[in-house]
Amino acid sequence: MIAPGSTHASMAELNRSRIIRLLHLNGVSSRAHIARELSLTPAAITKITAQLIDMGIISETGTLDGIKKRRSIGLKLNESKYRVIGVKFARSIIQIGVFDLGGNLESVQTLPPVNNDDIPGTLEDITVRVNHLLELDPSIVAIGMAVPGPYLRDEGRIAVVTSMIGWQNVNFLDEYEHAFRVPVFIEQDARAGALAQSLFNPNASSNNLAYYLVGEGVGLGLMDHGNLINGEVGAATEIGHISIDVNGEPCECGNRGCLERYCSAVRMHRIIDESGLIDGSASMTHADACLALFSHLGNGDAYDKLLHDLATYVGYGCVMIINAFNPRQIVIGDILSQAGQPLLDTVKQVVAQRVIPTLSESTEILLSDLPADATLSGAAAVAAAQFLEHPTEFVEQQEPPVS
Amino acid sequence: MIAPGSTHASMAELNRSRIIRLLHLNGVSSRAHIARELSLTPAAITKITAQLIDMGIISETGTLDGIKKRRSIGLKLNESKYRVIGVKFARSIIQIGVFDLGGNLESVQTLPPVNNDDIPGTLEDITVRVNHLLELDPSIVAIGMAVPGPYLRDEGRIAVVTSMIGWQNVNFLDEYEHAFRVPVFIEQDARAGALAQSLFNPNASSNNLAYYLVGEGVGLGLMDHGNLINGEVGAATEIGHISIDVNGEPCECGNRGCLERYCSAVRMHRIIDESGLIDGSASMTHADACLALFSHLGNGDAYDKLLHDLATYVGYGCVMIINAFNPRQIVIGDILSQAGQPLLDTVKQVVAQRVIPTLSESTEILLSDLPADATLSGAAAVAAAQFLEHPTEFVEQQEPPVS
Repeated sequence: MIAPGSTHASMAELNRSRIIRLLHLNGVSSRAHIARELSLTPAAITKITAQLIDMGIISETGTLDGIKKRRSIGLKLNESKYRVIGVKFARSIIQIGVFDLGGNLESVQTLPPVNNDDIPGTLEDITVRVNHLLELDPSIVAIGMAVPGPYLRDEGRIAVVTSMIGWQNVNFLDEYEHAFRVPVFIEQDARAGALAQSLFNPNASSNNLAYYLVGEGVGLGLMDHGNLINGEVGAATEIGHISIDVNGEPCECGNRGCLERYCSAVRMHRIIDESGLIDGSASMTHADACLALFSHLGNGDAYDKLLHDLATYVGYGCVMIINAFNPRQIVIGDILSQAGQPLLDTVKQVVAQRVIPTLSESTEILLSDLPADATLSGAAAVAAAQFLEHPTEFVEQQEPPVS
Repeated sequence: MIAPGSTHASMAELNRSRIIRLLHLNGVSSRAHIARELSLTPAAITKITAQLIDMGIISETGTLDGIKKRRSIGLKLNESKYRVIGVKFARSIIQIGVFDLGGNLESVQTLPPVNNDDIPGTLEDITVRVNHLLELDPSIVAIGMAVPGPYLRDEGRIAVVTSMIGWQNVNFLDEYEHAFRVPVFIEQDARAGALAQSLFNPNASSNNLAYYLVGEGVGLGLMDHGNLINGEVGAATEIGHISIDVNGEPCECGNRGCLERYCSAVRMHRIIDESGLIDGSASMTHADACLALFSHLGNGDAYDKLLHDLATYVGYGCVMIINAFNPRQIVIGDILSQAGQPLLDTVKQVVAQRVIPTLSESTEILLSDLPADATLSGAAAVAAAQFLEHPTEFVEQQEPPVS
């Protein structure tokens, strides 16, 4: 419950956060421009920007040419003054990245591929590596982690992880909540990916955005009118476990014919192995086997057909996403998106055939073009979004704001 | 774009709306209680409640026993002072109801069953009837309409209406936007139903709520953390057109194996006709044929099995809803919900078999028990919600608020 009197304090934080987000999205802006965009009085702008400059979060640039030839001083977000760590947990793939607040990757490390038996050691390894990064760089203010869904956010564990059940025994909150000198925020991987698209991708700036993760698992993050859809316990938008055939093969979740069984990288790897098209594929990681196939696209019908079959299922997923969530944009990311245009072409064909024209024409489908992996960027975005929303909570320990 | 200076005006309206909603949900409350719940200062409460009393929206009751034996005056919402009209458009069924702000039905009229050819005459009939109600009752402040989805809210038309295509040619905005002395608000039927559950049903008070409409069509309205999920053009949560078998029969929407083809009242009517179980069913309306079957439940395996088969598909819809939206509650309403406990039992069985236990155990599934049809109540809720959010816009024509 909010204590009486807190309304003013949180209103000030809200306005700080709105200014930071505006500068983050629009780049250098004058105080007058910010005042107009956010309907704030000049006096409020002067006060709040002075606080943010004192905190080192924003700074003044040179003068700008304004309307009617008036010149004014520009303000910009110091994106590189504070950093965040993102940790991506896929099934076998773990990556740790250091990002600035603009989503620019400064360093990345990939851990050795993980098997079920390696999980406890891997968790320990992550703690050691993250603590080392924190020691080296005092500008790191938060850590974001992206984990496969359905992630039960209050319990701290993943309810079901197909084809790598060991992860279900991990409690991420117990493991990491108090493990570091900075706070840790944990989010379902595709939801983190959606946040990354919304914060860091200038081509995906819609408020109604789907990030469709097609990697070792199949997941979805959905922003509807600017709100991430979470559900009661954080298990919403689990399209990997929506059935595309209620009489299909059983899945570990209890359902039958789950989408994830038809178009994950795990399934693609199995089909590649069965086809014999890629020498030595059986000993490759899932990602490497898929990338090896993609490198042969255009070199023969057998390769192209294999992708086309998988991409058709990716397309069925898009049809489902449109009917369930009607986003403005669907951004496809993770391993399968690296097949590029041939994947996108098939997906768009399926959508054109199976969706009401009004909706198929108004839904843009694109491939993620973030410089880093969208889930890794997403993990960073989870931390960056917390900073952008509550800047003083992260900074005031060092430099108290002017009140 | 919001004009500078409007922040204060809308803050006052927001606080008026918060007080009205609190009284609507909690019943009689003291000023001190409202101040605590909403973190408002005593001075603000005194001023805003005085305005609302002047506007006739709330009034004082006798004294209440407070904590520490202090006595204070109660405030209550005058739910019956203002009324709204709700209009339900199903395929063949049109109903017009007059409700108070608490969702209590004061009068209802059902139009003759509609066929494709009758639609233009029916639209005119509705205008005449609604205008007559408005003449009789000056306390009516708004009209809500609930129409089948996918309803494209900016265009004012329904993108696809299975088994009754004539509705696709109607533009609801052109038809009704300026037809009456009070404003008209139009919403997809199941989303209106979700709003009705949230506003009017004390057993369905969760912020994470699904209203699952299984009637002549199949639809869904979804509230996630208090926000109705709309999508870019209002076409989200169209589960009737999510496929449960991507290789199934084609649907008018372009997709194959759409849920609506398996468990609508239209489909149930066809199966009843084919079974020969109900004498004269072919000449009945869809609703009457279903109700005739339900009246025989428990009287023989043939009747029970027919419901069980349909209810299994209703259950697959619930599995889809849980994986897509993870609501706290699913309220099933409209024609099929009138089958009662046997339907609910089968649905719960399917969910227990096909959903991760953590989620199936934490999702409550119930039948709508609103006194009126949930979509008709929903139409009224769409109008009532607008009133509760922006009270002065509806009242100030008559009695300007104290500024």
